[in-house]
Amino acid sequence: MTVLKNDTFLRALLNQPVKYTPVWLMRQAGRYLPEYRASRAKAGSFLDLCHNTDLATEVTLQPLDRFALDAAILFSDILTIPDAMGLGLHFVEGEGPRFERPLQNEEDINSLQVPDMSKLRYVFDAVTSIRRALNGSVPLIGFSGSPFTLACYMVEGRGSRDFRHLKTMMYRRPDLLQRILQINAQTVTEYLNEQIAAGAQAVQIFDTWGGILSDAAFKRYDLPYLQQVVSGLNRRAENRQVPVVIFTKGGGLWLEQLAQSGADALGTDWTVNLQQARQRVGTQVALQGNLDPLALFGSQDCLELEIKRLLAEYGHGSGHVFNLGHGINQYTDPEQVAFMVETVHRISVRYHTD
Amino acid sequence: MTVLKNDTFLRALLNQPVKYTPVWLMRQAGRYLPEYRASRAKAGSFLDLCHNTDLATEVTLQPLDRFALDAAILFSDILTIPDAMGLGLHFVEGEGPRFERPLQNEEDINSLQVPDMSKLRYVFDAVTSIRRALNGSVPLIGFSGSPFTLACYMVEGRGSRDFRHLKTMMYRRPDLLQRILQINAQTVTEYLNEQIAAGAQAVQIFDTWGGILSDAAFKRYDLPYLQQVVSGLNRRAENRQVPVVIFTKGGGLWLEQLAQSGADALGTDWTVNLQQARQRVGTQVALQGNLDPLALFGSQDCLELEIKRLLAEYGHGSGHVFNLGHGINQYTDPEQVAFMVETVHRISVRYHTD
Repeated sequence: MTVLKNDTFLRALLNQPVKYTPVWLMRQAGRYLPEYRASRAKAGSFLDLCHNTDLATEVTLQPLDRFALDAAILFSDILTIPDAMGLGLHFVEGEGPRFERPLQNEEDINSLQVPDMSKLRYVFDAVTSIRRALNGSVPLIGFSGSPFTLACYMVEGRGSRDFRHLKTMMYRRPDLLQRILQINAQTVTEYLNEQIAAGAQAVQIFDTWGGILSDAAFKRYDLPYLQQVVSGLNRRAENRQVPVVIFTKGGGLWLEQLAQSGADALGTDWTVNLQQARQRVGTQVALQGNLDPLALFGSQDCLELEIKRLLAEYGHGSGHVFNLGHGINQYTDPEQVAFMVETVHRISVRYHTD
Repeated sequence: MTVLKNDTFLRALLNQPVKYTPVWLMRQAGRYLPEYRASRAKAGSFLDLCHNTDLATEVTLQPLDRFALDAAILFSDILTIPDAMGLGLHFVEGEGPRFERPLQNEEDINSLQVPDMSKLRYVFDAVTSIRRALNGSVPLIGFSGSPFTLACYMVEGRGSRDFRHLKTMMYRRPDLLQRILQINAQTVTEYLNEQIAAGAQAVQIFDTWGGILSDAAFKRYDLPYLQQVVSGLNRRAENRQVPVVIFTKGGGLWLEQLAQSGADALGTDWTVNLQQARQRVGTQVALQGNLDPLALFGSQDCLELEIKRLLAEYGHGSGHVFNLGHGINQYTDPEQVAFMVETVHRISVRYHTD
């Protein structure tokens, strides 16, 4: 494999010294970029784009051509797993993902199985192709939805405001939900290990919907399955450690428990104060985040102030990866992203002197 | 005024000894009750229902006829204030509130003023009428949206997933947002004081959208205006203290700061662990909450376990008002509410022995 020229991101995730704070953006390859919209139009649907190795590689690299980002992230969808399980993923324009066959009864759930990884070959092929195209410039992040977040979509059949079907199952038939979660945890573990084998140099688990849970339910239906995944990962590849990031959106109250999951780093949304978070987790994990994505709609003066504040909040030393607190908004001006990346790099140097 | 027969709710908010944990539900007069739907049909629109003193009184009392709730809450809407400011509130069936004239430019904002309270007379009349109808059975809660939450709707013109217009203003023209918040804070103070004068025996400030803010923005655009309102309230009436509750949904990370706002109690959503919350705020404030509203969709065994867990989490002694962590879901079975209220009363007795 090619030598990695910029390992700042991987080092920061492992609390190793760095010269500046690395930065990447959740959903950095996305609709806010005109070149992404062009590739998407070429592909046809969003899913066609995910399935096409060359186009998935192309869009993954687009933000890196524009901005001095410190990591690339595999272009894919978090719902590839339930799709491979046979639930029939499709997208309704302007409304997000839908499953044709959500898990609606005990029989559906009893027949649910860990899918053959060959059905997800297109994802691993994309990883290999992107690694080749990156040519050692920056590391590649692989990812998966968390067992719980996948279950939300699998039971609900779509996104939801209150996840009423999922929660009805949780409060009526917890055994059924636990069966889904158990299968999801095994699948996510295999899926991420295949991504690592194909060349992913770090992995992130997107626990997008963990924050809809009560404190008690989080500890019962989300955290144990995150732990199970993390403990099953092959965390060394190419003679390097493969860091694991967990991002539970809305999970700021649970950072201590998440820090004990075995992950190397925790993503945080913008409600979290980074100084307090660092105090709470100590050196057990690195922290990633957490600019409000809408701060990119601000004046550059305001944006610079927000960036300065976040860097100062985290303070001196390694263990911080700059990111947004959620995916970038589709109406973001790319010029603002360029300014943000440059500003993070420029200002953060002062926090990494000896 | 009539003697108050059941003051358990008011005592719990003030950390005074009680015999059991009092309970009420956010949105307890609402669509899950068939008798509410009948009154609503009689009134015409939702706003007609709010404007009609007799019908507002009728629906406020409906849940009390069914369940042994320990408080009534004024039936009204949180958007009465911006409506009185001239923004033109209306409701689109199935989509929620809309303003005809949202605050979209500097001129709109410069001409914004504290409305004459006479425009909100119908609300105060409802308070007086409901107090009369309650006849001292349980206390009546008045309420308002928070200055920040009102601003969200006023700028956006409607509910939103990301409040992009509001946040663009926040990050571009914070001075304009601050002007709106200043006027809202003055208005909310007058509005709640009028409700207290009309007979409200406790008031709750619904900060429904505080949780969309970053930690820094919460401290700049939400908390100071909550504090301003609380400090301006007339907190004694009829020879009794009028407790003030603040409920910042998604604000579990900020309980310490909210506890210093001067409020008597804090509402908490279900992501908050009540034991930890109690440790964090000490005896400075009482706590209200925080059952997941969807737990009411569970089996009665599961529901009873959840109630037991919450009561045990809070533990021995006063200072806890049982409630949901958000408004009751419209598809809730009223039988489940009856079971919940009875269970809270029955089980909580053990936490209030000497």
